[in-house]
Amino acid sequence: MKTTLQDCRALDAQDPLRTLREQFSLPEGVIYLDGNSLGVLPKTAAARVAEAVTQEWGQGLIRSWNSAGWFSLPQRLGDKIAQLIGAKPGEVVATDSTSINLYKVLSAALNIAAQDAPQRKVIVSERSNFPTDLYIAEALCKERGMKLQLVEPDGIAAALTAEVAVLMLTHVNYRTGAMHDMAAVTAAAHAAGVLTVWDLAHSAGAVPVDLHGAKADFSIGCGYKYLNGGPGAPAFVWVNPKHTDRFWQPLAGWWGHAAPFEFTPDYRPAAGISRYLCGTQPILSMTALECGLDGFLAAEPLGGMAALRRKSLALTDLFMALVEERCAGYGLGLATPRTHAQRGSQVCLTRKEGAYAIVQALIARGVIGDYRAGDPSTDSERTGSRDILRFGFTPLYIGFEDVWNAVEHLKQVLDTGEWQSAEFNQKHAVT
Amino acid sequence: MKTTLQDCRALDAQDPLRTLREQFSLPEGVIYLDGNSLGVLPKTAAARVAEAVTQEWGQGLIRSWNSAGWFSLPQRLGDKIAQLIGAKPGEVVATDSTSINLYKVLSAALNIAAQDAPQRKVIVSERSNFPTDLYIAEALCKERGMKLQLVEPDGIAAALTAEVAVLMLTHVNYRTGAMHDMAAVTAAAHAAGVLTVWDLAHSAGAVPVDLHGAKADFSIGCGYKYLNGGPGAPAFVWVNPKHTDRFWQPLAGWWGHAAPFEFTPDYRPAAGISRYLCGTQPILSMTALECGLDGFLAAEPLGGMAALRRKSLALTDLFMALVEERCAGYGLGLATPRTHAQRGSQVCLTRKEGAYAIVQALIARGVIGDYRAGDPSTDSERTGSRDILRFGFTPLYIGFEDVWNAVEHLKQVLDTGEWQSAEFNQKHAVT
Repeated sequence: MKTTLQDCRALDAQDPLRTLREQFSLPEGVIYLDGNSLGVLPKTAAARVAEAVTQEWGQGLIRSWNSAGWFSLPQRLGDKIAQLIGAKPGEVVATDSTSINLYKVLSAALNIAAQDAPQRKVIVSERSNFPTDLYIAEALCKERGMKLQLVEPDGIAAALTAEVAVLMLTHVNYRTGAMHDMAAVTAAAHAAGVLTVWDLAHSAGAVPVDLHGAKADFSIGCGYKYLNGGPGAPAFVWVNPKHTDRFWQPLAGWWGHAAPFEFTPDYRPAAGISRYLCGTQPILSMTALECGLDGFLAAEPLGGMAALRRKSLALTDLFMALVEERCAGYGLGLATPRTHAQRGSQVCLTRKEGAYAIVQALIARGVIGDYRAGDPSTDSERTGSRDILRFGFTPLYIGFEDVWNAVEHLKQVLDTGEWQSAEFNQKHAVT
Repeated sequence: MKTTLQDCRALDAQDPLRTLREQFSLPEGVIYLDGNSLGVLPKTAAARVAEAVTQEWGQGLIRSWNSAGWFSLPQRLGDKIAQLIGAKPGEVVATDSTSINLYKVLSAALNIAAQDAPQRKVIVSERSNFPTDLYIAEALCKERGMKLQLVEPDGIAAALTAEVAVLMLTHVNYRTGAMHDMAAVTAAAHAAGVLTVWDLAHSAGAVPVDLHGAKADFSIGCGYKYLNGGPGAPAFVWVNPKHTDRFWQPLAGWWGHAAPFEFTPDYRPAAGISRYLCGTQPILSMTALECGLDGFLAAEPLGGMAALRRKSLALTDLFMALVEERCAGYGLGLATPRTHAQRGSQVCLTRKEGAYAIVQALIARGVIGDYRAGDPSTDSERTGSRDILRFGFTPLYIGFEDVWNAVEHLKQVLDTGEWQSAEFNQKHAVT
């Protein structure tokens, strides 16, 4: 029996998390399926950022470093992030960008490998990893005379040879939504003498993560996607405590010093994760990020990340089913795994042609997803040979009727062929 | 004849820049002499940041990367900074923190030296340079098997030997306000085959800077001091065009890629200064920074940086004179050079004891300067053997009567000895 709009409304009525969307300011007439790229605005953020601007900065000025707690924002926000990723208080700092934090942890991992296993000269990653991760690894390999080896997802296990120092993976793939089994992959890496670096850009706030349970070594992640921290919000970094104090990270700025206000000419790294700080942080953006993190607090009494995960899977299951039921015959494929344990919080459809225009037609109708170009260097659909229509489902603010409506618009776009009209394509040409 | 309050009021009445302070939101009852640490709030920033939060983020969401121009903020703001430092459009980007930008340019400078003069293995800097600069250099030296040689200001020329790759200096010293002759020092360095890296943290927006005129090689600077960009505002980076495209910088993130949205697995650096970008930038903090930069536009028809410099020197001359006239006999020394060409936009007094408590007593009276501890490793007053009372004079919003009043409060603090009372010291103990 096919799913109906009434079924979707019934699911919303039964959803214990349905009130959480009241925390967010969503534009009228928009179904926002791009929270995996930029999360939405928490209602608290406007007043909180205004207070930081006019009171803390305008009135408090330099005094606010202490009186408004600016100095401790990286640690305070880090503790809030820790709760979402299976880390402990004092193990995470919110700071800098994901790319920069990756440079720090990858440098530290390579330093550890250079001491413990100097013959290991290779970093292994996925060829379809998010490019900035590969660029940072490539730059570090150039500097240190090492090699970056890129493999397909099913080639990871075989790549973990005695030459490999570090396995660097993104937990949930940005193009396909495929999720690794962090514990199993980490165990396989450790069995091969390889350290792990996990990028949680599409995991933190999206799926349950247990860094300690997985015995991960290093991890980084993004503040502006599922954490709703605002455009370009600072990122975060976690290091397994067994590694933290072994080495400096190279971006040895004064915020990572053991006593920054002694102004000594020589660097003495802080104990613990604070040594992963470098320079002064963008306080206004940090303030907004805290509002995003606090948006997860209201989910706690309703079951927290476990409950969010249940709803996320129900949303993505529903989207997959409705696309198959209602948009059959239009050449859409599925890049995202059907198996729950292998799926993040997004669904990626594939199409040989027209994906960009179809996404634009949906956006014109208020259904905001995004497009990622196919990758000509591979012919495997799962790794993205075809163009991708990407839809993120954020259980904090997306409901089941939203899913119905999104598919209804997709069906209409395909039924009408409006994305193929010359007029439409002129207006939405790739620029 | 001694200066009077009436004289100061007359100076304000004649000051062609006196209306500029109307652009800023200053707390009632405060004389803010710490704009060299955190600049004040431009009145435009509250509304502009609120618009970025509620409209651009809240309503525009992911679309604002294009529609609100978020992607081009580093370049757009960079072009505005360029006008203040003698750089050309397209040569500066606003991004990341000062420490991180220093890591980028110092890495690039070392790469150039390694190719052009591989026998040069030393970075020279001042022992009293701002510590984070020294820490970053120390970390890079560790990585690359190089040596960081720290000298006193009068030892720089002699240190420029055939072993030196890079001379890294802060243009205006944070502890003393002493300013280097950028053109002369750069010429001496080049004559010795040495590349120069200039930190403009206490120069940009404070004193005229002419990077091209000085033939400088690399430069970085801070957004939240004299540029009034807000707490932790992004920093900036400039590279002499003759060097820009020669090497990658190691923080090779996707924003520095020639085509970031092609999502190719291999890094191809953008041409020009954009290759000094790394990851996604904190948009709310960038938005506030733009308001700070625009605060300099109103000074343009009034003579721009040259006029601001004239007023800055008049303010610091006046402060020095009034302290000597009115606070004699209290053991205050002067760390800042009297010679105009050697002075930034701050005045640093010295005292053997009590500097911290005196600064706290001033702050309690609404005169906000700051304190920097003496450096026990040197006995030269100019390089800071004694504790420092630091006062920044920002001609955009400080007037001559402010200077009078600040010195009047200093005199009263010293006359009454209120900073010495047990009650005061208990309340303001160093924590």
